Amino acid sequence: MYVIAVYDVDQKRCGKMLKLCRSYLHHIQNSVFEGEITEARLEELKIRAKKIMNEEDEDSLIIFKSRNEKWLDKEIVGTEKRPVDNVL
Amino acid sequence: MYVIAVYDVDQKRCGKMLKLCRSYLHHIQNSVFEGEITEARLEELKIRAKKIMNEEDEDSLIIFKSRNEKWLDKEIVGTEKRPVDNVL
Repeated sequence: MYVIAVYDVDQKRCGKMLKLCRSYLHHIQNSVFEGEITEARLEELKIRAKKIMNEEDEDSLIIFKSRNEKWLDKEIVGTEKRPVDNVL
Repeated sequence: MYVIAVYDVDQKRCGKMLKLCRSYLHHIQNSVFEGEITEARLEELKIRAKKIMNEEDEDSLIIFKSRNEKWLDKEIVGTEKRPVDNVL
């Protein structure tokens, strides 16, 4: 499955979330990630993200899922920051 | 067409970008927007965004387009900040 993930967490937890998301998906913008992932790996990512996030601080992670990447077109206006950033 | 738009701009320009994007789409997270939009309105949004953005500062706006919202599932982990925020 193809997913887009975007987090919005307090600055204190940004580094941890960045590192976590990069270990599952491609980093395409500040707090935006995309890539192919299995259902099981996505569950794992969500569980690990919940451990980092603080819901009282309104931290959130939005995941858009598509069964097929072809159903989505991506367009970048402005600077493409990380064109060749790969999953670590 | 259904789109997801995410901007990453210098703090100085965040307010303007927020206001612009909110006038075209639903605001669902810090710098994330979604909604139905026509091709013409999306072009207008992109032109107006380019006027606000500074490419030398690596400002960017990523747009994911899908012909059909049903092709995408959205899941929110953590706090849903703006469940009833509508287009102004």
